[in-house]
Amino acid sequence: MSRGPATRFKVEVLDGDRTSRREDMVVTEEPLELRLEWPGRPPEPLVVTMRTPGSDFELAAGFCLGEGLAVRPDAISTVAYCTDVKLTRDQQFNTVTVTFDGPPDREPPQRYGVTSAACGVCGQQSLDELAERDYDPVDPVEVQLDVVRRLPDLLREAQPTFGRTGGLHAAGLFTTAGERVVVREDVGRHNAVDKVVGWTVLNQQSRKGLVLAVSGRAGYEIIQKAVAAGLGMIVAVGAPSSLAVDLARRFDLTLIGWTRGERCVIYSAPDRVLRLDNS
Amino acid sequence: MSRGPATRFKVEVLDGDRTSRREDMVVTEEPLELRLEWPGRPPEPLVVTMRTPGSDFELAAGFCLGEGLAVRPDAISTVAYCTDVKLTRDQQFNTVTVTFDGPPDREPPQRYGVTSAACGVCGQQSLDELAERDYDPVDPVEVQLDVVRRLPDLLREAQPTFGRTGGLHAAGLFTTAGERVVVREDVGRHNAVDKVVGWTVLNQQSRKGLVLAVSGRAGYEIIQKAVAAGLGMIVAVGAPSSLAVDLARRFDLTLIGWTRGERCVIYSAPDRVLRLDNS
Repeated sequence: MSRGPATRFKVEVLDGDRTSRREDMVVTEEPLELRLEWPGRPPEPLVVTMRTPGSDFELAAGFCLGEGLAVRPDAISTVAYCTDVKLTRDQQFNTVTVTFDGPPDREPPQRYGVTSAACGVCGQQSLDELAERDYDPVDPVEVQLDVVRRLPDLLREAQPTFGRTGGLHAAGLFTTAGERVVVREDVGRHNAVDKVVGWTVLNQQSRKGLVLAVSGRAGYEIIQKAVAAGLGMIVAVGAPSSLAVDLARRFDLTLIGWTRGERCVIYSAPDRVLRLDNS
Repeated sequence: MSRGPATRFKVEVLDGDRTSRREDMVVTEEPLELRLEWPGRPPEPLVVTMRTPGSDFELAAGFCLGEGLAVRPDAISTVAYCTDVKLTRDQQFNTVTVTFDGPPDREPPQRYGVTSAACGVCGQQSLDELAERDYDPVDPVEVQLDVVRRLPDLLREAQPTFGRTGGLHAAGLFTTAGERVVVREDVGRHNAVDKVVGWTVLNQQSRKGLVLAVSGRAGYEIIQKAVAAGLGMIVAVGAPSSLAVDLARRFDLTLIGWTRGERCVIYSAPDRVLRLDNS
């Protein structure tokens, strides 16, 4: 891993009646683990954040300032990539150690999702970890292209709060015929997905034959939640991240992005988007 | 707190030469603490997520499925708001307990930002907690309206990766004259803010007289990071959340949203946006 800020993928672009296969640039998303140390204390993990590689030391320093750990301008002595020999080279570039000149200006809290050093910190390991969780295969749902294209509008029509505030993400489950099953809104896109999946759990509804539509971008978390729910197709209005594409391919889930009007981009398992046979 | 999905605020709308004061609907953002319990184990906190109130039980159930805790359809016995008498009524509605029929299908991990029950779980408490952190007052920076309006374009011009991927957020620091100091991109908007603030830390640059511009929406995290960095003005292209507005008002930071073309909406401290005197 440790790719640049953008990652190249082969995709299928559907635009009106035309299908083209080409390369697409996708924003790179990889986990970064921040570790803190100061004289007398060995490095300990503070947080793992999904980020775009680049300016990692700045990210680390800014995070420490934001959390009140490094309020004094000279509180941070050094920031460096990890040299832990137990980590692979890729993992080393996804682990940053911040060394303070003494105890931080505030006790490092336990609330940022502290992870053990054994926890995966490079994208590949995150995928491996997820694979180890022994999920059932996702539902290989097949959907007509014209239904895919209608989903963003159907989602938007069911967003009562968006029109008033403009600040909400939506997620929805739809049948392959484009019938709406459930739509939920939230300020966090991952919460909106949790809500629609949770609706099926609480109402003991099967998720078989359903498609997940999301109003915004599709990052790692969205795909992870879809895989865990056994959902085999995601239609996003926005762009995916590199880790989202990696994950969708690994779990053979159809990932469609940029679904706008007559155009959409298929990043994985394109054969399940059914097209009228014009040949 | 525990408002509906949208919250009403008095704002100042600047459109061309016209200024109007009116009410604006903002998406509600409040923390939700999820707790897990099962026979023989008392409720323990699992995660705190910033969410829009509504469908909270679905959110809880979907989160548990996504994390592999509730794979069996009947693993969850009940989902309920907290009845902890030590919590206020508002806090009770920001705390949900999921009761399993036995141990979860997977050991609950420690990595989701586990918080103690003493940690603030309603928006008001989050604000109080932040206030307790004893920050210096933010810099009361004043900026001409025409500079505010130019910031989104200036930010966009400095985004090399966005044009290729469409999937990136940007944050930038600018002088009151609109000169670019530093711009960074990231798949996570909070990371982009950490990177620009971290740049000032690592380069020992003063943040005095600087304005933070962000390409997307402005939620709680963005304002919190600005307050911690002493930045007194945020110009966002997208919508703010209710907690962002609350926080900006509490710390007397100028928060501007919907900055597009000739129009913008000022949610707090509007007097620091300087306008030509046409009176």
